[in-house]
Amino acid sequence: MAQNKVVGPEIERLIQLLARLPGLGPRSARRAALQLIKKKEQLLVPLAEAMGVAVAKVGVCDTCGTVDTTNPCAICADPKRDRSVLVVVEDVADLWALERAAAINAPYHVLGGTLSPLDGVGPEDLNIESLVERCRSGEVAEVILAINATVEGQTTAHYIMDRLTGLDVNVTRLAHGVPVGGELDYLDEGTLAQALKARTRV
Amino acid sequence: MAQNKVVGPEIERLIQLLARLPGLGPRSARRAALQLIKKKEQLLVPLAEAMGVAVAKVGVCDTCGTVDTTNPCAICADPKRDRSVLVVVEDVADLWALERAAAINAPYHVLGGTLSPLDGVGPEDLNIESLVERCRSGEVAEVILAINATVEGQTTAHYIMDRLTGLDVNVTRLAHGVPVGGELDYLDEGTLAQALKARTRV
Repeated sequence: MAQNKVVGPEIERLIQLLARLPGLGPRSARRAALQLIKKKEQLLVPLAEAMGVAVAKVGVCDTCGTVDTTNPCAICADPKRDRSVLVVVEDVADLWALERAAAINAPYHVLGGTLSPLDGVGPEDLNIESLVERCRSGEVAEVILAINATVEGQTTAHYIMDRLTGLDVNVTRLAHGVPVGGELDYLDEGTLAQALKARTRV
Repeated sequence: MAQNKVVGPEIERLIQLLARLPGLGPRSARRAALQLIKKKEQLLVPLAEAMGVAVAKVGVCDTCGTVDTTNPCAICADPKRDRSVLVVVEDVADLWALERAAAINAPYHVLGGTLSPLDGVGPEDLNIESLVERCRSGEVAEVILAINATVEGQTTAHYIMDRLTGLDVNVTRLAHGVPVGGELDYLDEGTLAQALKARTRV
């Protein structure tokens, strides 16, 4: 590649690593690398430091499976969370999304993916056993399955429901319906059918 | 911000710094940070190292003004470049683009921007004096102005042409015309007029 001649291998490597970030392709990785180099003191130095700190401190919470700089994580350690409720999510990104919405003040349990036999992902590859353990403790009264409404997500939700039968917990799932601000014309039939079925009195 | 409660300040700082990269907004910065943390050994550790190396080694070439890990840069130090030609570009990104095209094997001169009186950018803010010096050395026979075809770029090109009058150098500029693969229907009138005017015999 011609690029190799024009910049040193160190810059080339920086570009190649940046290109592996989601949302950045080869072209935008070059732009990002150039921006980093140009704004060395304001951007490159602090970002290199922040990454060094992340390398040293970030890990997975032994209790819920999220990532944080402490173990147990800030959420599991928070005494103000309602421990009678447990919110089950597929991924850390989903946990972050729910926290941004600030819709619930309960601890979480991160599965780390969904069941996918085709990709060789079985129950033993997800944090399901530890979820059952947490529900067995007797502290949890309700498990909210905040799992994506995809085929894999729903399969995983069904599997978890099966595993939790017999335990003294109520299992609930997120409501289906019209997204706030959404236009009916752009929604799929499945969502519309669910929204009609679950209609509420005004 | 709700985000502060859910992740430690170290992760929050990483997200905020990533969001300042071109091409990444707040949302994609979160996704990038999460990807970095999840792929700690494969992505975060090498990227942190690459940035540390860049902090330590990258600088501006005293001769041409590009960024590289050596000074003079790899291009200025390359004995195979044709030193009778000097390619003037606005920005390092333009230099990289020309090198990727591998269209010319000559050294460069990076202006570091364009004249813009409204933004307070005058000739003394650009590497124009050093360009005149290089042309005075007698080694340069042709200066190619590979400057963007924008109003500011063309103003800058005219200013440079004025500064180089009296010196024994030919000043040329890139050809205007239809981009290779471009459709006439989508081109502006100015480009079409230039392409017609500069038509060539086939």
